[in-house]
Amino acid sequence: MYKENYPSRLLADAVDAINMLPGVGRRSALRLALHLLRQPQENVHHFTSAINSLRDEVKYCRICRMISDDEVCSVCSDLSRDRNTICVVESVRDVMSIENTGQYHGLYHVLGGIISPINGVGPSDLTIRELVARVEALCGLEDIERDKIEVILALSGDVEGETTSFYIYRQLEKFGVKVSSLARGLGFGDDLEYADELTLGRSIANRQIFRP
Amino acid sequence: MYKENYPSRLLADAVDAINMLPGVGRRSALRLALHLLRQPQENVHHFTSAINSLRDEVKYCRICRMISDDEVCSVCSDLSRDRNTICVVESVRDVMSIENTGQYHGLYHVLGGIISPINGVGPSDLTIRELVARVEALCGLEDIERDKIEVILALSGDVEGETTSFYIYRQLEKFGVKVSSLARGLGFGDDLEYADELTLGRSIANRQIFRP
Repeated sequence: MYKENYPSRLLADAVDAINMLPGVGRRSALRLALHLLRQPQENVHHFTSAINSLRDEVKYCRICRMISDDEVCSVCSDLSRDRNTICVVESVRDVMSIENTGQYHGLYHVLGGIISPINGVGPSDLTIRELVARVEALCGLEDIERDKIEVILALSGDVEGETTSFYIYRQLEKFGVKVSSLARGLGFGDDLEYADELTLGRSIANRQIFRP
Repeated sequence: MYKENYPSRLLADAVDAINMLPGVGRRSALRLALHLLRQPQENVHHFTSAINSLRDEVKYCRICRMISDDEVCSVCSDLSRDRNTICVVESVRDVMSIENTGQYHGLYHVLGGIISPINGVGPSDLTIRELVARVEALCGLEDIERDKIEVILALSGDVEGETTSFYIYRQLEKFGVKVSSLARGLGFGDDLEYADELTLGRSIANRQIFRP
């Protein structure tokens, strides 16, 4: 029998690497490794270089921190969108989910995480300072009334999401802008990522003023 | 909404590439791509280079065509194994499965596929010629009697497996060596009630003397 069950160190290394992906067990990792081994070399190189390019070359929009191919993302540079509404989300995936509902026409702000003392994530690890600066800059524009500016806190309904919403609310309070949160059509503790589009779309349409 | 649902061409390309893996849908591919995007750059490079190394550097044993780190694999170079028995299998995965049983102590021969006219795979696409040469060389050794040499055809029980077994059998017939195939019958612990009729029929036809 093989040492550690693999006939080749290279195969064992590849299985170890693929096994690190979430939701991929060792058996699936072996199946995927052997599949890749059977593919033409250029296909495998295309596969790995697409992943390397994503990790190495992707840009983050300098306004909303969404991933983007350019300095400013396609949402932020779309002049037909409502520039006085900013939807604050945890991740890139959440922006994609909300865009897929077709219900929202404002801009976004990607926090890049959520306040979570257990995981060692504090406010300064997120893009909250940048959000505050965006709102401050909006308020400074001459032709805008402050009650026309709205920040939608579209974070998960769990304790960490509520904590983060509350923290951001306190940061924005002084500007006198409208701060809303998603309607709780979402079940308590539901992740945005797994919500169906109808529920998520309604949650945006029925968003309510944030009252802590 | 995003063009083609992706905020970045790099992300779309990575999802396309990951989506090519067997059993990975577009939703899972997106989840994996965003996971990789969140990992430290060196982890992603480790992941892709493990896969590139596997594809680019893996060797195939020059005797049995099993994947190997060396010219000759660990099974073929293990002098304690029975060198007069060759187990013919379709793939690398099959060798690993049989090794995991711990029941087999002979050598292997990996065909690299199965005869399948529908998929355009003929005998010359497999390592059948190499198998015949191995058996011929074994027969040429002075100290071996031909009925001590055995080739086990361990191929699938479907039409393509049976066709390939028959083709190989005809190629080896002239050497007068023993050619066997895997026992077909009920799985260990299977209920008669749930067995398909073909399997049950063969289990009856190939019944063995009961030796408690």
